[in-house]
Amino acid sequence: SKEITAPHPLEPLRQISKQIGHDLDTVEFAQHMDSIDPLRHLRNEFHYPKMKTLGSVDQSIVNPEEDCVYFCGNSLGICPKKTREYVTIEVDKWEKTGLEGHTNGDLPWAWCDEGLDDQMGVLVGAKKGEVGIMNGLTVNLHLLLVSFYRPKPERYKVLLEGHAFPSDHYAIESQIRLKGYDPKDAMICLEPKEGETILRHEDILRTIEEQGDSIALVCFSGVQYYTGQKFLMEEITRVGHKKGCVVGWDLAHAVGNVEISLHDWGVDFACWCTYKYLNSGAGCLAGLFIHEKHFNNSYPRLTGWWGHQLTTRFEMDNNFHPYPGALGYRLCNTPGLLCPPIKASLEIFQKTSMSELTKKSRLLTGYLEARIIAKYGYPDTQRQYNKTHRLIEENGESIGEHVNGAQSIENGAQSTENGAQSTENGGESDKNGAKRIYVEILTPSDVNQRGAQLSLSFNINITQVFEELRKRGVVCDERKPRVIRVAPAPLYCSFEDVHRFMKYLDQALNAALE
Amino acid sequence: SKEITAPHPLEPLRQISKQIGHDLDTVEFAQHMDSIDPLRHLRNEFHYPKMKTLGSVDQSIVNPEEDCVYFCGNSLGICPKKTREYVTIEVDKWEKTGLEGHTNGDLPWAWCDEGLDDQMGVLVGAKKGEVGIMNGLTVNLHLLLVSFYRPKPERYKVLLEGHAFPSDHYAIESQIRLKGYDPKDAMICLEPKEGETILRHEDILRTIEEQGDSIALVCFSGVQYYTGQKFLMEEITRVGHKKGCVVGWDLAHAVGNVEISLHDWGVDFACWCTYKYLNSGAGCLAGLFIHEKHFNNSYPRLTGWWGHQLTTRFEMDNNFHPYPGALGYRLCNTPGLLCPPIKASLEIFQKTSMSELTKKSRLLTGYLEARIIAKYGYPDTQRQYNKTHRLIEENGESIGEHVNGAQSIENGAQSTENGAQSTENGGESDKNGAKRIYVEILTPSDVNQRGAQLSLSFNINITQVFEELRKRGVVCDERKPRVIRVAPAPLYCSFEDVHRFMKYLDQALNAALE
Ligand SMILES: Cc1ncc(COP(=O)(O)O)c(C=O)c1O
Ligand SMILES: Cc1ncc(COP(=O)(O)O)c(C=O)c1O
Repeated sequence: SKEITAPHPLEPLRQISKQIGHDLDTVEFAQHMDSIDPLRHLRNEFHYPKMKTLGSVDQSIVNPEEDCVYFCGNSLGICPKKTREYVTIEVDKWEKTGLEGHTNGDLPWAWCDEGLDDQMGVLVGAKKGEVGIMNGLTVNLHLLLVSFYRPKPERYKVLLEGHAFPSDHYAIESQIRLKGYDPKDAMICLEPKEGETILRHEDILRTIEEQGDSIALVCFSGVQYYTGQKFLMEEITRVGHKKGCVVGWDLAHAVGNVEISLHDWGVDFACWCTYKYLNSGAGCLAGLFIHEKHFNNSYPRLTGWWGHQLTTRFEMDNNFHPYPGALGYRLCNTPGLLCPPIKASLEIFQKTSMSELTKKSRLLTGYLEARIIAKYGYPDTQRQYNKTHRLIEENGESIGEHVNGAQSIENGAQSTENGAQSTENGGESDKNGAKRIYVEILTPSDVNQRGAQLSLSFNINITQVFEELRKRGVVCDERKPRVIRVAPAPLYCSFEDVHRFMKYLDQALNAALE
Repeated sequence: SKEITAPHPLEPLRQISKQIGHDLDTVEFAQHMDSIDPLRHLRNEFHYPKMKTLGSVDQSIVNPEEDCVYFCGNSLGICPKKTREYVTIEVDKWEKTGLEGHTNGDLPWAWCDEGLDDQMGVLVGAKKGEVGIMNGLTVNLHLLLVSFYRPKPERYKVLLEGHAFPSDHYAIESQIRLKGYDPKDAMICLEPKEGETILRHEDILRTIEEQGDSIALVCFSGVQYYTGQKFLMEEITRVGHKKGCVVGWDLAHAVGNVEISLHDWGVDFACWCTYKYLNSGAGCLAGLFIHEKHFNNSYPRLTGWWGHQLTTRFEMDNNFHPYPGALGYRLCNTPGLLCPPIKASLEIFQKTSMSELTKKSRLLTGYLEARIIAKYGYPDTQRQYNKTHRLIEENGESIGEHVNGAQSIENGAQSTENGAQSTENGGESDKNGAKRIYVEILTPSDVNQRGAQLSLSFNINITQVFEELRKRGVVCDERKPRVIRVAPAPLYCSFEDVHRFMKYLDQALNAALE
């Protein structure tokens, strides 16, 4: 089975905790982790929003001067400090020189995306020319489907997630219709096993093995937007290819979040947006990947003048000569104001690497996971977690910090960092007959099957809790009625952010359940 | 015949010239025209580039403090002063609040295009909901073709211009292939009559009448990018519909330039870019129009989550419920940084109207036309122009100012505004045996069949002349080997700009032909 494919970060976290003599749930531990984080300086590359600038925050219950807790990089990344400067340069240029901006300055508009595309390609393991920057994600997905979804009567189906992101679902659905097939019949929407929330890797593989002969295209997200599950892209691609399917990936939640090797994996196509972990701003230009092996294919495609080679583009003779790679898929001239944010973003990624980021990310999200399980885990989950990580053997007893009075990690102490008893609410609640709070983490515990995000499913409606979190400057994402998604992005989030998140979650639960 | 459909602006220009006692070719005349221009204040809404900030300008031969001559609004409009402020507001918001920017501030990114779309709709005569702002032009054209090009075996052809803008040509070509037809057979590329450069309106109509039964789609540009010819959209649409064709327009060079009534004309669809006469910056978001009569059609379309109605968009149940109008065609979330420039641009248009702008534009371009014909017109053209406008009868003699010594407009004086003899070069050239310079205006003289742009075709290779123009701060567009396109945009260009253009053209010709 593929359920556990990489070492779990709890091990090093516990070792460090022992070394420094501070438990995982202490601010000292979190601060120590930050002090030894080799990427901690990267937070300074961003404008990390402050409590005082967030409209949702109740300034009377937080320190307005503090940073908020920004755990929403899976939805919208924060603003690199260089963005303003680079955007201003382009506005200046337009003001001062008009048309000359097309061919002059730092990012000449006529080719401002070129160069940035290959830099972005590094983040997905692409070779030169395999990545282009253009349009939005869903537009790119359509452009790719026009080329790569080529149904034939004996092989016309698309295998996708039953809970694919709606835009992907709609895109695939409409492309199936466009090509004359019936989505009801042609879409294989893979559902998790009864009672489960994530798709098991082996079930994906088995479906491909079993139905692959009728499948024209396998199209999944690299990281699932709702559950945070990372699919094992390499093997799915390989198995898909073995069955003769085309395999493409929507990397919206994967790029800048997890390690990806599109070229080496032989992935046929991929696309992604840049406003999540790539921090390029709402609706910014999206990425598009075409594997080199497809550079000379003669698949159908939608064409436009910007896909025409630059050397002869302006001869205007209406004979289309596309760039061989991803750039050939461009239709329109590139928005001059959208490349500066991408440049600012990529410069930060160039100060590190996806492998360094992944190392940190696993620790950071692993830390969050450990804290959540210890405090809000269902007894069974705690038991299982402890057993998996041999916490029971080491300590000779079960370990768990629970809002409702279970033991805290490793030492059984129940005080929270702000001195309040973490059981306070739990105890009262019990007296009042209120429900115990439990959290199920929908995201796999296997670090190879997730990125930064954890999806937390509460045993209560969290509408009010979410409001209380917002009041405390916790920026995350609510999926009604029970789920919040939290993503400590390793580029700019800290261990102390995780610690503060736990504190505010405790407060928010107390406030909401009062 | 439709050759002349509206009164020509020469008449009022000459009346004013008489009134004030200054000939058309004097700086006094140009300055007077500016002083009585009710839209002259709108130039202040823009950063009109200066000589000193243009890299192409030779600062030693111009006054660096002066404005350049920006006649390139047909290619890239100049920057509205408010753009910087509005862009900065969005960068600020992102820096300070991250995700909150989606639903807060002046232009909440989650619906920043909504509202602007209807404002933009005013410029094309659309009703509420008929216009959306999204993607780039060629992407929108593709989205529209997917819906509106529905070939059937007995009616599958597309009627387009033989010299359509390449991107349109490619888009149509690839869509024909996508739908299983052969572009060679299915594209009717209408060519001008032998020896002519513009398509005659009656020939377009006749082609539709004759071949319309096999034509699925008539798709033209509203204003031709190369010749500046404005097609008579209303009648072409009507005749197309009478023959059962769908009729769509690419308004790239028409929007913000000429009066358009898409709704009233019953146009099926249209699209346009916003970086030309709409001054929204290179590659900014494009417009898309769907006529109200199509709101409830069941044509095929490419779908994405942003076309889903906002009220239920985030329920994520994968049942697509589109907005009824143009917004239903949106695929992706909107780039937050591209709406501020559109807002800045539209605010300026709201200070006037397309009918006021057209009034000025006709005078301004008419003035340029008169100056060009008088100075560089072929004798036949001059004769014809004079005859058409009854200049001969009024003055009792032929009128013409020619670089090579012909008479100047109305008074026969040959001095140019800088005191030099305009015949100087002409005379020397004759001695040296150099060629006389003639310019043919490719653009129709009928103001109903053109907008701001004139396409000037020289009887010489203009590569060097163009370089000399650039050195003097004349920003216009070269189409090798003989054509320059000049467009005095009525929002920000002045009569004195035209006058200065004539001066610099004279200088540039002299310098290039030395
Ligand atoms: C008439 C016309 N159509 C299409 C285009 C292509 O525009 P885009 O690059 O915005 O898709 C242009 C660009 O100048 C144009 O002038
Ligand atoms: C997995 C996934 N696919 C597609 C999209 C749609 O993106 P866009 O609006 O950029 O087309 C998103 C947006 O969040 C996403 O998360």
